[in-house]
Amino acid sequence: MTEMTSITTGSLIAADKVNGTAVFDLTGDKLGSVENIMIDKASGRAIYAVMSFGGFLGVGEKHHPLPWAALKYDEGKVGYVINMDKKQLEGAPNFDGGSEFNWTQDYGRSVDAFYKTHSYWM
Amino acid sequence: MTEMTSITTGSLIAADKVNGTAVFDLTGDKLGSVENIMIDKASGRAIYAVMSFGGFLGVGEKHHPLPWAALKYDEGKVGYVINMDKKQLEGAPNFDGGSEFNWTQDYGRSVDAFYKTHSYWM
Repeated sequence: MTEMTSITTGSLIAADKVNGTAVFDLTGDKLGSVENIMIDKASGRAIYAVMSFGGFLGVGEKHHPLPWAALKYDEGKVGYVINMDKKQLEGAPNFDGGSEFNWTQDYGRSVDAFYKTHSYWM
Repeated sequence: MTEMTSITTGSLIAADKVNGTAVFDLTGDKLGSVENIMIDKASGRAIYAVMSFGGFLGVGEKHHPLPWAALKYDEGKVGYVINMDKKQLEGAPNFDGGSEFNWTQDYGRSVDAFYKTHSYWM
């Protein structure tokens, strides 16, 4: 109905359009794609990107919350880069897509601790 | 396929879920609904919410970019509040939904000036 996803400039991007953006490791291997962004309601700051990979038609897909602070946007790669390889990703916090996920503060803290980023949850 | 929009806590909200959130004036009248968020790629900060209202099935719909800094989230109203009434909204920067919209720096500046918010574009 609308063409909102076409609204972008060099520095701004529509939230719709972030979804689907590739995430690479430092060597350029693709780890997955951004599926959603978790935003702090009050400040409007993106706190986590939720990356998905694997599975087929949503079945068996893994969802990895990545602290936004751990991601760097790479204009050349047209995607985000994170300092983590596939091996490390296997041990990273993740949840299944099929079930309603209860995003507790403890869960958030465990994500922030894994990526050694400043914790949103204090 | 996924249930990402159900992932929310008191303070975090999935970007998917922000879309459709109501925007009210100070008296509690509904001005429209958030249709998209414009995010700064590098910092992950939401810079504008794009509010839509009017029209039918996307035809004749008006799109108003609102600086995020001009919005306050109201837990009670379950929506955003902005210090602007319907009369003022008529004169506010907007664009048609049907055409590809060219989001220039000048346009961004005119939006920031209208709402008297600190300009993202400098």
